[in-house]
Amino acid sequence: MTSKFLGIDIGGTSIKLGIVTGNGDIVEKWQISTNRSESGNMIIKDIVNSISGKIFENKLKISDFSGIGIGVPGPVEGGRVKRAVNLGWKDMPLVEIIQQSFNLPVQLINDANAAALGELWIGSKKGMQDVVFVTLGTGVGGGIVVNGKIINGANASGGEIGHIPLITNESRICSCGNINCLECYASANGLFHTMKNLVNQYDSMLKFSNTADIFELSARGNLIAHEAIETTISYLAYALSSIINTLDPEEVIIGGGLSDAGEALLLPLRKSLKPLLFPQIKDNLRLRKASVGNDAGVLGAVYQVIQEQKL
Amino acid sequence: MTSKFLGIDIGGTSIKLGIVTGNGDIVEKWQISTNRSESGNMIIKDIVNSISGKIFENKLKISDFSGIGIGVPGPVEGGRVKRAVNLGWKDMPLVEIIQQSFNLPVQLINDANAAALGELWIGSKKGMQDVVFVTLGTGVGGGIVVNGKIINGANASGGEIGHIPLITNESRICSCGNINCLECYASANGLFHTMKNLVNQYDSMLKFSNTADIFELSARGNLIAHEAIETTISYLAYALSSIINTLDPEEVIIGGGLSDAGEALLLPLRKSLKPLLFPQIKDNLRLRKASVGNDAGVLGAVYQVIQEQKL
Repeated sequence: MTSKFLGIDIGGTSIKLGIVTGNGDIVEKWQISTNRSESGNMIIKDIVNSISGKIFENKLKISDFSGIGIGVPGPVEGGRVKRAVNLGWKDMPLVEIIQQSFNLPVQLINDANAAALGELWIGSKKGMQDVVFVTLGTGVGGGIVVNGKIINGANASGGEIGHIPLITNESRICSCGNINCLECYASANGLFHTMKNLVNQYDSMLKFSNTADIFELSARGNLIAHEAIETTISYLAYALSSIINTLDPEEVIIGGGLSDAGEALLLPLRKSLKPLLFPQIKDNLRLRKASVGNDAGVLGAVYQVIQEQKL
Repeated sequence: MTSKFLGIDIGGTSIKLGIVTGNGDIVEKWQISTNRSESGNMIIKDIVNSISGKIFENKLKISDFSGIGIGVPGPVEGGRVKRAVNLGWKDMPLVEIIQQSFNLPVQLINDANAAALGELWIGSKKGMQDVVFVTLGTGVGGGIVVNGKIINGANASGGEIGHIPLITNESRICSCGNINCLECYASANGLFHTMKNLVNQYDSMLKFSNTADIFELSARGNLIAHEAIETTISYLAYALSSIINTLDPEEVIIGGGLSDAGEALLLPLRKSLKPLLFPQIKDNLRLRKASVGNDAGVLGAVYQVIQEQKL
């Protein structure tokens, strides 16, 4: 019987869990809700109980597993979650706690980085080593993979693509405290904000309630929606080209809610990127939508364990 | 007798050579001029002859050496120099030729990347693994070191920091064919161009003939020169913060001609960077001037050989 791994993707509202083989096949997956009471201490108890129950239920035992990978919504360093506002955690020694509960090797990874590794492991052409992964969701996140490994950074802030500063003629304050970060413009919130500004200026009767509406309006020929999307994509292209010209990756993968727009996002993004990329790069770079979806975090957390055990 | 290495740094006007120990001590260094006749084929003959002569002269033999590292002014891939306009080379199988001449392992590396590795090896605090190296010379070059290794990139274009595109209200055409690359603004030529524009506009009698003059004028309180430097630094800060917020390196090292200005460049650059860096990074990042100087290329080429032999 080949060895299995446990993957855990902790989010602010739910925790995804999975039993995964060394080849990336998900044997079983389930999820529990995130109970943030007791300063987030219930979260760990819930995870341990849920895993124990699932192992028992499947007539498995701890020795069937080779390790546990955990993705968390915050920076990680030395086995600790430095902070995770959404969970109420600060300097949480998660690796130690989970290791004591199951007596298995545990790897901790930031959730955006886990999603990037999940894409690299399952979604990319085999053998890919250098990938830039960008999530365009409520915020903008990222994971940078170089030589097959996530860049965690000197201050656990590697891949903070959302906080690339832009030169703009507006002034939007970012959740990080800085001004005009990419996230203020290229997230779902950012696109919504840009659309709202344009609507107020040109057609205050135009109705839209989310970013899907904006893409829909644009598809139907609405020029205001088209302009809002173009502006968003133009900023994204500038930020991405900085990264691409610096790292020269094989592939750039776009995930998160905005990527649901598919080619309506990717086609104009490719067009905007072209004049900004270094000549030797522009004809070879692949830009594609994330393909793994909701399981990317669980899979990436497991992949991190497998990679560390290779050394 | 401990093993030695040969380091070669090929430039458009001169070729620097050195005999280097495994600890990075330069036992002997010399240089020859670059003879670009015969489509650059003389360059290789000159190098081979010069090394052979020096080995004989020092009563050494080939078996005293463990390898040869070569830095070249162009992209490298699979042991070949893809092109080096300054040398007249295109798709030159340099590793094969030098290997056949000396029967030693040969490593090829781009010159900006070699300089970065040289700084990492000799100039940085021991144990540094993640460094961004920027050369502000005639152009703007770069070398990105992650986990102690240079990022060469999928198209041999890793570290092309000079070609990060900027959002500006001017339009400067870059040598690469794109518009408004960082190099058009933050190189010595870029600063000179910016100064010239301002002088034409505000004080056409003001004399200056190089960037040292501009820093000198600024130090003496000239507001036009001050403005030219501030503009240059502002663009540089935007480009660097994109890289820094993405990679979260331990150190950013500035080399090249403009770095001779020392703190007159670094102090305002630190100030411009501060509001643009991700909060967890801004208090910890070190920004410093390159310290190895002219030998960085030779040393970095050797370090590349040593690293490859470690695997």
